Amino acid sequence: MVTGRNENLTGRIRLGMVGGGNDAFIGGVHRIASRIDDQYELVAGALSSTPEKSRASGEALGLPRIYDDFKQMAIREARRKDGIEAVSIVTPNHVHYEAAREFLKRGIHVICDKPLTSTLGDAKKLVKAAEASDALFILTHNYTGYPMVRQAKAMVEAGDIGKIRVVQVEYPQDWLTIEQDFKQAEWRTDPTRSGAGGSTGDIGTHAYNLACFITGLEAEELAADLEAFVPGRQVDDNAHVMLRFNGGAKGMLWSSQVAPGNENALRIRVYGEKGGLEWAQEDPNYLWFTPFGEPKRLITRGGAGSGEAAARVSRIPPGHPEGYLEGFANIYTEAARAILAKRTGAAVDADVVYPTVADGLKGVTFVDACVRSSKRNAAWVKL
Amino acid sequence: MVTGRNENLTGRIRLGMVGGGNDAFIGGVHRIASRIDDQYELVAGALSSTPEKSRASGEALGLPRIYDDFKQMAIREARRKDGIEAVSIVTPNHVHYEAAREFLKRGIHVICDKPLTSTLGDAKKLVKAAEASDALFILTHNYTGYPMVRQAKAMVEAGDIGKIRVVQVEYPQDWLTIEQDFKQAEWRTDPTRSGAGGSTGDIGTHAYNLACFITGLEAEELAADLEAFVPGRQVDDNAHVMLRFNGGAKGMLWSSQVAPGNENALRIRVYGEKGGLEWAQEDPNYLWFTPFGEPKRLITRGGAGSGEAAARVSRIPPGHPEGYLEGFANIYTEAARAILAKRTGAAVDADVVYPTVADGLKGVTFVDACVRSSKRNAAWVKL
Amino acid sequence: MVTGRNENLTGRIRLGMVGGGNDAFIGGVHRIASRIDDQYELVAGALSSTPEKSRASGEALGLPRIYDDFKQMAIREARRKDGIEAVSIVTPNHVHYEAAREFLKRGIHVICDKPLTSTLGDAKKLVKAAEASDALFILTHNYTGYPMVRQAKAMVEAGDIGKIRVVQVEYPQDWLTIEQDFKQAEWRTDPTRSGAGGSTGDIGTHAYNLACFITGLEAEELAADLEAFVPGRQVDDNAHVMLRFNGGAKGMLWSSQVAPGNENALRIRVYGEKGGLEWAQEDPNYLWFTPFGEPKRLITRGGAGSGEAAARVSRIPPGHPEGYLEGFANIYTEAARAILAKRTGAAVDADVVYPTVADGLKGVTFVDACVRSSKRNAAWVKL
Amino acid sequence: MVTGRNENLTGRIRLGMVGGGNDAFIGGVHRIASRIDDQYELVAGALSSTPEKSRASGEALGLPRIYDDFKQMAIREARRKDGIEAVSIVTPNHVHYEAAREFLKRGIHVICDKPLTSTLGDAKKLVKAAEASDALFILTHNYTGYPMVRQAKAMVEAGDIGKIRVVQVEYPQDWLTIEQDFKQAEWRTDPTRSGAGGSTGDIGTHAYNLACFITGLEAEELAADLEAFVPGRQVDDNAHVMLRFNGGAKGMLWSSQVAPGNENALRIRVYGEKGGLEWAQEDPNYLWFTPFGEPKRLITRGGAGSGEAAARVSRIPPGHPEGYLEGFANIYTEAARAILAKRTGAAVDADVVYPTVADGLKGVTFVDACVRSSKRNAAWVKL
Repeated sequence: MVTGRNENLTGRIRLGMVGGGNDAFIGGVHRIASRIDDQYELVAGALSSTPEKSRASGEALGLPRIYDDFKQMAIREARRKDGIEAVSIVTPNHVHYEAAREFLKRGIHVICDKPLTSTLGDAKKLVKAAEASDALFILTHNYTGYPMVRQAKAMVEAGDIGKIRVVQVEYPQDWLTIEQDFKQAEWRTDPTRSGAGGSTGDIGTHAYNLACFITGLEAEELAADLEAFVPGRQVDDNAHVMLRFNGGAKGMLWSSQVAPGNENALRIRVYGEKGGLEWAQEDPNYLWFTPFGEPKRLITRGGAGSGEAAARVSRIPPGHPEGYLEGFANIYTEAARAILAKRTGAAVDADVVYPTVADGLKGVTFVDACVRSSKRNAAWVKL
Repeated sequence: MVTGRNENLTGRIRLGMVGGGNDAFIGGVHRIASRIDDQYELVAGALSSTPEKSRASGEALGLPRIYDDFKQMAIREARRKDGIEAVSIVTPNHVHYEAAREFLKRGIHVICDKPLTSTLGDAKKLVKAAEASDALFILTHNYTGYPMVRQAKAMVEAGDIGKIRVVQVEYPQDWLTIEQDFKQAEWRTDPTRSGAGGSTGDIGTHAYNLACFITGLEAEELAADLEAFVPGRQVDDNAHVMLRFNGGAKGMLWSSQVAPGNENALRIRVYGEKGGLEWAQEDPNYLWFTPFGEPKRLITRGGAGSGEAAARVSRIPPGHPEGYLEGFANIYTEAARAILAKRTGAAVDADVVYPTVADGLKGVTFVDACVRSSKRNAAWVKL
Repeated sequence: MVTGRNENLTGRIRLGMVGGGNDAFIGGVHRIASRIDDQYELVAGALSSTPEKSRASGEALGLPRIYDDFKQMAIREARRKDGIEAVSIVTPNHVHYEAAREFLKRGIHVICDKPLTSTLGDAKKLVKAAEASDALFILTHNYTGYPMVRQAKAMVEAGDIGKIRVVQVEYPQDWLTIEQDFKQAEWRTDPTRSGAGGSTGDIGTHAYNLACFITGLEAEELAADLEAFVPGRQVDDNAHVMLRFNGGAKGMLWSSQVAPGNENALRIRVYGEKGGLEWAQEDPNYLWFTPFGEPKRLITRGGAGSGEAAARVSRIPPGHPEGYLEGFANIYTEAARAILAKRTGAAVDADVVYPTVADGLKGVTFVDACVRSSKRNAAWVKL
Repeated sequence: MVTGRNENLTGRIRLGMVGGGNDAFIGGVHRIASRIDDQYELVAGALSSTPEKSRASGEALGLPRIYDDFKQMAIREARRKDGIEAVSIVTPNHVHYEAAREFLKRGIHVICDKPLTSTLGDAKKLVKAAEASDALFILTHNYTGYPMVRQAKAMVEAGDIGKIRVVQVEYPQDWLTIEQDFKQAEWRTDPTRSGAGGSTGDIGTHAYNLACFITGLEAEELAADLEAFVPGRQVDDNAHVMLRFNGGAKGMLWSSQVAPGNENALRIRVYGEKGGLEWAQEDPNYLWFTPFGEPKRLITRGGAGSGEAAARVSRIPPGHPEGYLEGFANIYTEAARAILAKRTGAAVDADVVYPTVADGLKGVTFVDACVRSSKRNAAWVKL
């Protein structure tokens, strides 16, 4: 039996939040994720795009300090002795760059939702801003926080499946099968806020990031056939992508928002010279492992065959499912380890892993490459 | 898409904890569960059976107030203006009654792990203590907190499967297949601390509680064939139970700690005159519903066919799995709703549901009946 | 890759059939099963209870020789030089004994559907008739023909799961959830034709036989709580049974015809001191094996970990599912091996396995014990 | 409950076989398939490429008439009054055309394994040969015989999922993960016998055929990235293909022989404007159907929601799995219906469906297009 080791052993990190007001989904996720391992205390926020909404949302949460906008928050918090040490940015994509910049330049750590930005230009500028800052930048590609994703990565690194040949990754959803007009759908299908990629940006980036994270590979080129099936939609709602990775592995990536019967069916299958691994986000406590020539094995989180890489981001015994929020919390807790090390000047533990601004750039580059390829009739383009 | 509504809208409830020191599993679960919806702040504890261990564990958690024992804690906290409003009791079973009594009689709400007590005598006394107190008593039969368990209960109440005929419930594990000597195993197989039931008390009570919760039925009599398969074990590690419910339904219950390949495989199937429902704890976001004569349907948490009963204890969209900790947190959050209402004298919302001391008594009665029946060669005994 | 070895290498066995007329389900199954491995040629039949129907059914099948009743068929075929060598008896249960007797006493091999008879008295007489005859008696407990059931049995024998402790077996269906009046339902719920057991006789016997076949154990006593949930039904449609096996293993058996969402959900789980095995009839090409302390393994028919016991009753490579008819055919082919050996006086291969009249008696004894126990308020009765 | 209706009502069709000798897998499959519904009697064969082997194999099967080669067989059988009416051709691919031609021109119906031929040139010639003959040509794209594939096709035709947008189809295997030298592997990886496509020809054609069969669509163009991962292999063992169908639907097709953990994991998912369908060959009795906005439904073969298209090719009740051989037998039985109609000059029933020489040409065209595209760096090519 494995029991987690994530209890808070020190003072909580003072956290602010940009975006995440009343009608946002992802803000609440970030707040819960920040609480699970008791590493953060949310003390300030600029939760909406207008001062009125921001205030209403902040009061609803009982926030000690509520700001009209993120710039004001960055300036004032930076001046306070008890100001925030880190900020979560959970706005629509097009705001990520500007918001992050304000905090980074004032030495406040940034925990930012994905994709990194809505344009490749912004992404490159944000990389520079992060490099120029002493503050940390953590991107919440949350699926890398799942224990069995960590386990899969560790098994690939250990050579359990041999040299990788084939990567099949997909992230189908169905919620945009028809035209939707609620807020979550609205900004995600508006290229000025979401970016040029629709499904590619919103979920394809997750799929691509997951493939790279587990395999340790990167795509060198891709060919993408994007489509907007719903009439009038300005961004892709379905993407078929062929990938060629460094080292010779090949892959397919499918992202879709128009596949009825799929909720968040992110799934990855990796095949090497010696074995195969299969994992699905909706059943995240299971990892299927087939050493070639042996029976398929079901490795459960914390069960037999599950090792240290999963155990260190796991809280409860096998057979008691952990889910999306715990995986998300793992990103926050990894970030907390790095932030707390920063506080004291200590070195960060070598096993701390979180997605960085560089991963974010790769994601935006992936979207950009998909859009470029698709415009050229799915020709191969370099990443 | 359904988004939860569990954000903390008021000041946190001041919480203490009895038991749950360094090497306990369930203490950490309670602490995380208390934080997820931001309703509690843990401020005091008597975390172990010895003052030394209690102090070490308390300091490790950074607790503001650490006590040598629960009685001292009850007395002193009751006197403080900022004393705890509620206490979580997460000790081995035989301590539940004495600890709970101390807090109840001082008006401090009790959130107690299951089973209620290690003996039927203690259970009855605890019921009286709870009745005599103005404080609330919440038992963490946490599986009733899973959204799709709530959904199942709601569907039974709505008549979706008609009058119930058959209830099949089981909770197999495998961790005690061989003799184990670590702490979790050690007290659970010691009748003086765990009670006369082994698997029946530790997990059979969960299975029985779940069956009653979903169906709204209670067993009138049972016949139990208990066995301790591992040589030298003093309590049952496998239990076969036949049940007869009020209203004529019949059931089977199986609990086992010696079934290799089962981690926490709690599973329930309920069949009525019009349909069937199936749910499994290890895949808790799914509820299978078959209206007789129609195809089986997969209802996902928050997806189509999932209603308000699930939504009000759910935080994230369908396809993003919630797990054990979120289900556990739902018990804490339901308790918080009741506690906060108490604070202000307001009426508790009618939809707030949590297991009570009466449910706890039923669980201990179930264990007692199993042991009595088994001693009489599995004769039928009344509950 | 495993390829089967079941091709017919000699002349076909001349086969007759009793029962199995136009509106019967099981007759067609037997006919297909007899053809799959090309060991039999159906040449005669008395397919119905009336001469008219028998003739119509026989003509529809293009049978060379059609008889008005089974006695006439037995007498005349026994006299022919090219008369049938074997007969399949697929009538309702109450006819089995009388029909089988007629053929056995004339030296014609009998392949009989289960349960053996509708009464324990008939069963005992049939055992004697079979013992007195030089002809073979094969009972089509067809589930023992599934390759992965053979594999499970072989693994138990090899000690892969150690000494058996717990056996959980169940066979739920839903087709009798409401009153049905078509032929298949009608005779199965009539105790004069089906026997005193309803679900116990029709499917409980299968479950019990499967448990004994795989484990090599026999129940010494049982306690059964039978119920007829549908108003007016004269035989049980749901049975809860606790079992105590020789050697100390314990089990539960559930048969039901009123469990909506279950078609033919026969499933067995066997747990021993060293591991566990799980198999389900509706997904018969999979066998789940968990050595205690290791990950669960999925053994597929013919795949890695699947051995000779499965291979010898398997025809096609892994990943190409075999089903119910192939499993049924395996009983016919095992019978053919024995019958062909009889023809030449050769010894039957040691690996030939099929259910016998003794197994049939055990099944009827099981039903009788269930009925006796249930009448005595589910008291323990010896088998 | 649905019971099949496939019993033989007339004299058996006299069948010959070319190929399918002792060490071939697919020959045995064809023979069993031909027997299941009792429509054929195998009476002649030229089972191997050499007279000696042909004789040995024929004698092992007890064939009445054994020939040294297929040409001899075609000539002599055509002259006999009781000569074969149909021939099954189950040789390696490069022999299909020549063998088929000999029988077609003599008016003997041909039942031929897939792919149609090893080259596009041969395929076109075979189409002409079939068109010029009065005899029927049936291609055993056997997966179209599965009842739930028929059901899926019927549901698409009925508009249950609306206009199709996305088709995801895949056929991964793992048996060629390493170099193999047994016969089945050897000819399949030799382009002179198998054709220019490796996985594309052997299993990609099945996947493509299945997609077209269910959706009623055809690909207009494709882009294929083929790879031979195993060193020295001369044909592809992994293929990534993007498809554009007539009417605007898009698809991905993956075939692989190097994906450890996959046996014959043919799987298709079809998504339209109103719903989605999912089916997997290894669990063929299940069809998953999600009407957009409703819970996913599990339609079982013969169960609720399963209609006439499945029932007419189904033999046993729901919950009793049918498998690969029954699906294969359905092709033979559909062929028998057409052949028997030919015998008498009657019209074939409108619901008789089997893959034709035209479907075969499409398959070879698909392989050819994959190879052409891949040579041009996965450029789009027309089919």
